[in-house]
Amino acid sequence: MQRFDFRFDLRGTDRATAARRGTFQTPHGPVETPAFMPVGTNGTVKGIALDPLRATGAQMILGNTYHLSLRPGEETVRELGGLHAFSGWDGPILTDSGGFQLFSLAQMTKVTEERATFRSHIDGRLIEFSPERAVAIQEALGSDVAMVLDHVVALPATPEVIADALERTLRWAERCRRAATRGDQAQFAIVQGGLDPERRVYCATKLAEMDFPGYAIGGLSVGETPTEMYACLDVTAPALPREKPRYLMGVGTPTDVVEAIARGVDLFDCVMPTRNGRNALAFTDQGPLRLRNAKHERDPQPLEADCPCPACRHSRGYLRHLFMAGEMLGPILLSIHNVTYYQRLVAGARGAIEAGTFAEFRARKLAGWKKPEAAAAGSGEEGFAPELP
Amino acid sequence: MQRFDFRFDLRGTDRATAARRGTFQTPHGPVETPAFMPVGTNGTVKGIALDPLRATGAQMILGNTYHLSLRPGEETVRELGGLHAFSGWDGPILTDSGGFQLFSLAQMTKVTEERATFRSHIDGRLIEFSPERAVAIQEALGSDVAMVLDHVVALPATPEVIADALERTLRWAERCRRAATRGDQAQFAIVQGGLDPERRVYCATKLAEMDFPGYAIGGLSVGETPTEMYACLDVTAPALPREKPRYLMGVGTPTDVVEAIARGVDLFDCVMPTRNGRNALAFTDQGPLRLRNAKHERDPQPLEADCPCPACRHSRGYLRHLFMAGEMLGPILLSIHNVTYYQRLVAGARGAIEAGTFAEFRARKLAGWKKPEAAAAGSGEEGFAPELP
Repeated sequence: MQRFDFRFDLRGTDRATAARRGTFQTPHGPVETPAFMPVGTNGTVKGIALDPLRATGAQMILGNTYHLSLRPGEETVRELGGLHAFSGWDGPILTDSGGFQLFSLAQMTKVTEERATFRSHIDGRLIEFSPERAVAIQEALGSDVAMVLDHVVALPATPEVIADALERTLRWAERCRRAATRGDQAQFAIVQGGLDPERRVYCATKLAEMDFPGYAIGGLSVGETPTEMYACLDVTAPALPREKPRYLMGVGTPTDVVEAIARGVDLFDCVMPTRNGRNALAFTDQGPLRLRNAKHERDPQPLEADCPCPACRHSRGYLRHLFMAGEMLGPILLSIHNVTYYQRLVAGARGAIEAGTFAEFRARKLAGWKKPEAAAAGSGEEGFAPELP
Repeated sequence: MQRFDFRFDLRGTDRATAARRGTFQTPHGPVETPAFMPVGTNGTVKGIALDPLRATGAQMILGNTYHLSLRPGEETVRELGGLHAFSGWDGPILTDSGGFQLFSLAQMTKVTEERATFRSHIDGRLIEFSPERAVAIQEALGSDVAMVLDHVVALPATPEVIADALERTLRWAERCRRAATRGDQAQFAIVQGGLDPERRVYCATKLAEMDFPGYAIGGLSVGETPTEMYACLDVTAPALPREKPRYLMGVGTPTDVVEAIARGVDLFDCVMPTRNGRNALAFTDQGPLRLRNAKHERDPQPLEADCPCPACRHSRGYLRHLFMAGEMLGPILLSIHNVTYYQRLVAGARGAIEAGTFAEFRARKLAGWKKPEAAAAGSGEEGFAPELP
């Protein structure tokens, strides 16, 4: 199979921050960065059909190796043409490796040097996941970007446990590299190391030596404070090769995304927009709106006056009604609005980096999310719904 | 308010059957008949956003007076611009009167000559519905077509009870007529009378004397056999004015729709396409497909090769996966497919009536739905999911 050139063109860097503007080439088209990938766990971004998903501005979506390997099984996906044909999404797709789900969702996970063994959260079946198996599944799925299998440990843990998992993550990354056979699939390595700056830099440096086409920062947004996460990014991002894309896994709130962009991150994925949308929370430039709140009952305003999404053709009163009546259209429309919100956010960041105004963009967004008027307009609307594991 | 001319132009009648091809004018545009109205109980056709709903070919949708008056309340809908602005559907809308829900869903309904009193199925609140109130709610909603309040009785019932309810239905129809004030809303009367041909003809004749702009046939598809329903249509439809639209309420299967068209019915509404879609049943010209069936697991075919709907851009294997994984997109896509199926069915009927080939159309559809190959392809796929009250 001909080897695709997964080129990352760094088109510009902000003067005041570490924010970068790039283009990442994949076999299914380019990804303009910074970019946000909606999460399509089971081969669908929850509640959003293909046409509205494209219309949000999403360029690349994420699929979950753990979930898809359990149901419908990667062989079914392969037989139906791979994840692109299966899901109908003909743009770029990134698949995670299952490393995170093995430690957050699977039951009775046991890790040896050779592999992780666990029981399926669906039917209790005993399953083995080795680095080679994680690669094989992702090759069957046929994503544009595959992630190496990493060894994630639950925190808090002793330094010995963390160090042991970190070394295993490095060895597993090398095994994943050797196992890969598809020339049309890029493999990204994952930096672990908890919140310890030295371990993070060590891990990033070791992985950089292996020369992967891209690097992810894993193990964040798992309970630490935003300040701790940003401090970790401050040391980890600069330790990664400048000319390769940097992907912050599973992050985060709009604030997290803007702060991570300022620290040199190029790619994001998170369930926040869709999970919160299903729970009647809408993201706006004035902070989140909780649509179940009674004050929206007769509000004729859209969620955001300048938003082109289908939810914003309706009044807040109508959207509230959909949730109060238990109608599916409520979760559908708010999921679309929130994914659109994240896409407009990263598109705004791209434009600001190009225009040399990212610092102003960042300050304006942060100020909007903390606007006193938003707080005054309705108590209980500040802060974001927590991200579940 | 200027009086709108709710003209029904009978453009042609089939030679071999009583099928009619017409155009019904409403303030929100014409409805080409025979037409099928998807049900938008709470101001949304369940699971279908506006763009895909329009793309199904739906011309007119139905809203439920009982449901909307309880939640969010007709005053909220009125304040948000009426049901068209509220729901965003700018095509024709018909609202039922609540008569059916009073007897199927409300609790402890008590009927006097003056009004029905009942408890809300949502919160047990005591509520009164009179003919005048049913009119007032529908005027607040601002639908293009409003239905008169009818007195529906649970069957079996004694002849005295049926006759009493029938006479009350006639008196309530007259009261609704007198209560109506909007010149831009047509009021359709409802023929009741159980399965008794004499009562049906009597009711139709009495209502015809009152000269409504349209007539509905109610109280069918409530447990009687298809043969009984068709026999009832055979006598009721001809008793209605030829130059007015005829609407068969709450019906039915694709077979029912085609058989009723053959008997001179112009308008339909039913939850069948959406409710069955949510339950993983897809309508096709070869009969229904149950998508949870294991035989679809690796089937690369679409539901129907010639269907333009978004579900038919996917394989049956993918659609099955969505249901097995509990993904919202399964109900969404199958609801869209099924509404599209019904729209293509009535569009096909319109074309066939115009071309003078309706009898062949009917025979071909009925043969397809009973195809031996469909039965051979998978047991348990024959017959339609039952219509719930």
